[in-house]
Amino acid sequence: MDDRLRKQMEFALEIDKEKNVFRQTHLSGHGRNENDAEHAWHMAIMAYLLKEYSNEPVDISRVMIMCLIHDIVEIDAGDTYAYDTEGLKTQKEREAAAKERIFSILPKDQKEDLLSIFDEFEANVTNESKFAHAMDNLQPLMLNDSNGGGDWKEHEVTKDKVYGRQSKTREGSEKLFELTDSILKKHIEMGNLKD
Amino acid sequence: MDDRLRKQMEFALEIDKEKNVFRQTHLSGHGRNENDAEHAWHMAIMAYLLKEYSNEPVDISRVMIMCLIHDIVEIDAGDTYAYDTEGLKTQKEREAAAKERIFSILPKDQKEDLLSIFDEFEANVTNESKFAHAMDNLQPLMLNDSNGGGDWKEHEVTKDKVYGRQSKTREGSEKLFELTDSILKKHIEMGNLKD
Repeated sequence: MDDRLRKQMEFALEIDKEKNVFRQTHLSGHGRNENDAEHAWHMAIMAYLLKEYSNEPVDISRVMIMCLIHDIVEIDAGDTYAYDTEGLKTQKEREAAAKERIFSILPKDQKEDLLSIFDEFEANVTNESKFAHAMDNLQPLMLNDSNGGGDWKEHEVTKDKVYGRQSKTREGSEKLFELTDSILKKHIEMGNLKD
Repeated sequence: MDDRLRKQMEFALEIDKEKNVFRQTHLSGHGRNENDAEHAWHMAIMAYLLKEYSNEPVDISRVMIMCLIHDIVEIDAGDTYAYDTEGLKTQKEREAAAKERIFSILPKDQKEDLLSIFDEFEANVTNESKFAHAMDNLQPLMLNDSNGGGDWKEHEVTKDKVYGRQSKTREGSEKLFELTDSILKKHIEMGNLKD
C-alpha cells in the first residue's frame, strides 16, 4: 500500500473512535445516550432535507461534510455539554490540541482541506457554517423534545441558557428558529426549563 | 408549523431509529457491535476522503447522501448480514415494504428524491452507486481487519463468500480492490477465513 493511501486509511480507522464519544442527548423513545458519530450522521441528513430553509443559498455538499466532521476533535477532547459552564472554559484548548493530532494523520493536502472545513464551522461566518450550526442545535432539540425535555430536566438547564444557544439557529434559518421557539415555549409552559 | 415542515421533521425523527439497528461488524479495539447510523456516517466520510480512487469521476455530494441513507429501510427490515444465506432470500421483500412506509413520511417531492437516490444505490449502475458500494464493503472490512478478522471467524465465513461480495469493490475502485485483496490474502494466510 502506498504512503498516501496508508495515511488515509489510518485516519479512517482513527475516527472510528468517535462512536465511543457519548453526548448528553438521549435517543428518541427514551433511549440511551447518543454518540457523536450518530449525531453527525443525523445532522447531515437533516441538512440535506431542510436546506430550503437556509436564510441564504448553501453548497449542501460542504454543509454535509462539515456536519460529518465537526465533532472529530472530541475523540481526544471529549464532549462538552452545551450548558456545562466549567467545561466550556477549557474546551478551546483541549480541542485545539486534538485537532492538530487527529488531522495530521492525513496527507498534507487533505489535512488542510479538512482543517479549513472544521475551522469554517467553528468561525461560523459563512452561510454553510451557519446552517450547519442550525442543524447542530435543531437535531438534539428534536430528540429532547420527543423525550419530554428530559435532558434539560436532568441538568436543570435554564431557559436563558437554552435561548442563548438556540437563538443562534436564527443566523442560519429564520424558519427553523421559529420552530425552535415554538418548541421552547411549549417546554417553558410545561415547566421543563427552569427560570 | 406548516404541513411540509411537519412531515420533514417527522421523517427526521423517524430515522433516529436507525441508531438501534445493529450490525454484525464490531467497532475497532474489539468494541461493541456497530449500528447502521454509525456505519453510514463512516462510509460518507470515507467516500469524501477516498474519492480520488473512484474508477470514474463522481458527484461526491450524491455519493455522500447515498451513503447516509442507504440503510434506512433496515429500521423496519433489520440488518441482513452479508453472509446470511437464509436472510438474503427474504431481504428484498422486507426492504421494499419498509422503503414505501418510511419514505412516504416525507413531502412528495422529497420522497421521490430520496427514493431515486436509494434505488440508484440498489441498482448499482451509476458511478456514484458503484463507489458507494465500494465504501459499503471497505468500511466493515477495515474494522474487521483491525480486529483480527473476528467477525469472519465468529460466523465461519468462507473466503469464496467474502470474495463474492468484496470483488464488487472493483467496479467502483480498482485501487481499493487491490487494498481489499491484500487484506483478504493476509487473513486467508492467518486462517481467519475458511476454505
